[in-house]
Amino acid sequence: MTEYDAVIVGAGVIGLSTAYHIKRQNLNAKVLVVDKLNAAGQGSTAKSMSAFRCLFSSPINYVLSDSSVDFYSHLQTELGVDLKLLFVGYLWLLGENEFAEMAPILKDLAARSLKYQEYEAEELAKQLGLTTCLHGDEEAELMGLKDVYKGIFIPKAGIVDADCIVKFYEKEFLRLGGEIHYGVKVEDLVVEACQPLGITGEPFFWQESRVSGIKTNCGIVRAKKTVLAAGAWMPQLLDNVGIECFIKPKKRQVFAVEAKNPLLRRLLFTRGFNSVGCIPFTILPKPRVLIRPFPTEGVFWLSYADDFPRAFKLEDDPQPEKNFYQYGIYQVLVKYFPQFRDCRPYSAFAGLYEINTLDGHPVIFEERDLIVVGGASGSGIMKADAIGRIAAALYNGEEYALLYGGRKFKVSDLSIKERHVEPEKLQI
Amino acid sequence: MTEYDAVIVGAGVIGLSTAYHIKRQNLNAKVLVVDKLNAAGQGSTAKSMSAFRCLFSSPINYVLSDSSVDFYSHLQTELGVDLKLLFVGYLWLLGENEFAEMAPILKDLAARSLKYQEYEAEELAKQLGLTTCLHGDEEAELMGLKDVYKGIFIPKAGIVDADCIVKFYEKEFLRLGGEIHYGVKVEDLVVEACQPLGITGEPFFWQESRVSGIKTNCGIVRAKKTVLAAGAWMPQLLDNVGIECFIKPKKRQVFAVEAKNPLLRRLLFTRGFNSVGCIPFTILPKPRVLIRPFPTEGVFWLSYADDFPRAFKLEDDPQPEKNFYQYGIYQVLVKYFPQFRDCRPYSAFAGLYEINTLDGHPVIFEERDLIVVGGASGSGIMKADAIGRIAAALYNGEEYALLYGGRKFKVSDLSIKERHVEPEKLQI
Repeated sequence: MTEYDAVIVGAGVIGLSTAYHIKRQNLNAKVLVVDKLNAAGQGSTAKSMSAFRCLFSSPINYVLSDSSVDFYSHLQTELGVDLKLLFVGYLWLLGENEFAEMAPILKDLAARSLKYQEYEAEELAKQLGLTTCLHGDEEAELMGLKDVYKGIFIPKAGIVDADCIVKFYEKEFLRLGGEIHYGVKVEDLVVEACQPLGITGEPFFWQESRVSGIKTNCGIVRAKKTVLAAGAWMPQLLDNVGIECFIKPKKRQVFAVEAKNPLLRRLLFTRGFNSVGCIPFTILPKPRVLIRPFPTEGVFWLSYADDFPRAFKLEDDPQPEKNFYQYGIYQVLVKYFPQFRDCRPYSAFAGLYEINTLDGHPVIFEERDLIVVGGASGSGIMKADAIGRIAAALYNGEEYALLYGGRKFKVSDLSIKERHVEPEKLQI
Repeated sequence: MTEYDAVIVGAGVIGLSTAYHIKRQNLNAKVLVVDKLNAAGQGSTAKSMSAFRCLFSSPINYVLSDSSVDFYSHLQTELGVDLKLLFVGYLWLLGENEFAEMAPILKDLAARSLKYQEYEAEELAKQLGLTTCLHGDEEAELMGLKDVYKGIFIPKAGIVDADCIVKFYEKEFLRLGGEIHYGVKVEDLVVEACQPLGITGEPFFWQESRVSGIKTNCGIVRAKKTVLAAGAWMPQLLDNVGIECFIKPKKRQVFAVEAKNPLLRRLLFTRGFNSVGCIPFTILPKPRVLIRPFPTEGVFWLSYADDFPRAFKLEDDPQPEKNFYQYGIYQVLVKYFPQFRDCRPYSAFAGLYEINTLDGHPVIFEERDLIVVGGASGSGIMKADAIGRIAAALYNGEEYALLYGGRKFKVSDLSIKERHVEPEKLQI
């Protein structure tokens, strides 16, 4: 049986970025990617909001995102790879208490010369037709909604087409001689003794053992290194061999509303924030309902990342819930943006976040010839290039990864055992 | 419907200790314990090796265990509650490399006046009929087994009857007016809005919500505080509401071998280590096969805590595996203790560890009126009294718990958010 140098499980944006960077740095290595679906990026990658921002309080989050976005920009502007990347910016609407909590964090970021811009509520009200004052609205008060006090605009932020990124990595990986097998479902990791004795029942617990490949619906694939980049599906495979990755799946839903009427069209194509001439990706005050513009389609994507009591639950085909929009997102949305009154989504989709419950940062570690790459916790697309480079550095046994733009990254900082990350204070 | 002040899920040693200490400090509170089984301590508590040691490198492990064991001793010697507690000691057999790794840790412990005693290999060989030198034994070399270089004896350590501890807490809890309902299976946690509006579909995500009780096969039980002490079963309930507790279940097996022949009887009743006149709880060199004497029954309990690739897996009725003894434990055991040659277990059992994958220490935290107590990772019985006192302090909203013997313990040290524990270096 052929033994691959590396088999990568998962052809989502993380798996393909990892595969590409491994192959690029090891042109003679036999590298295989498998995915249970029939094309690249059809799992959670396809269900993402596909937005990015390069403003985080955690230096690690910042560099992962900033260097990845720089790489994507480079692809689009210098190499002519159309990723549909648009710097529409992020507009974070904040209540008075939220702003007070955030002010010191923003000050720190300003000291690190990270760029953002403050907006007054009145300006935003005028520019966006935003209701900033909810006093006297009994419903809003009952719902605990707060007035908009300020807005923070993040210019190095925007939207991109996840599928285009995935296709880029896939094409380049194949061009370099990588193999991809679609429709291959991984049922288990294969564990074998490092020095087999040829006795039935191996490995026994007194033997050193390692992950030597994968068991799939199409047979066993052996590899020197097995790379798991299967997002929300990883914990299941890892639980089977007793390895903890601190990742749990959680459903996330996106509802698409067309900008049909003139008020909504005017909102979607709000000028003054960016060169695109559209509303930025907008975050409402707590609870943080999200509005992602899709200007080329004349559409808004609406979402909310609910925490408690949303279950950690693995589903092969998670479904959006009508009531989640109707009694959840919509109710909050119209209080701030009355333009959405009576608007219903014409389509919706749901995917799984692969949440790292330790600290929300990715995990990249190796144990017994198994490399685990994941836990991007909802910011996988904006960080995928850096994550792939770090995973490739781990594969190569290097202490530091070189990210796009030349920044060095200590590989063990995202490991489990020598993990070194600061908590993110700018959580959306 | 009655609302309890506290409902405790799980009548194992942790749940009952917690219930007892809560009730003892809140005599007027209505406190209910539920368990799916039909009596106390029938889950993982009953499947434990029921051994204890008061020598740990982590100060938290040390104080949890030391104060609990002091309490149990006090019960037995001063209050006449027979817990079948015997200070047989722990004997830790170490290879040369293992000893070298451990020497600095032991030095630190000695500086903290923790008591242990070093034994030379030759002494142990004579005293126990132990094979300390495996040179020339091809099988042993193939198995990677190492010579015994030294032994470390821990005198404040021994065995106890978990069932007797459980029965003590149960009886006292009932005597104080606590209620226990057996045969009640918790299917889910109940989540409700803190300020319900009376609308179908509550709680919506824009409402504050809390755990308001449990849904069981016998109906809903409401409580001001819900205390989850269900060991390996907790993550399932917590996943349903999206709360992470960092606990995973792992099967542990114990095999009972009778000391039938004179050689084994002599080994079991080895003199010189303790006043009981029996072999200490003994840990072989890596892989660390465990031997727990059961002198009153004329029996040895044998076990091994396998890590990789033993699955994290929740099973209602985990079963011991014949081959785990035959090709695992037995093979290692006879190399060091030839007295066991051809001995087969006359009975065996298996239970679930509730492993805290963060750091192996318990987790005790509150979130939304839900108190989570668990993750004792295989040392629950020896720490149960302290854990119960800390959980009761959390229930009472106190910053510090008073452990038996008067030691103060900062409750938040075992929380998730303000966790403060040192890694344990003396892992068995």
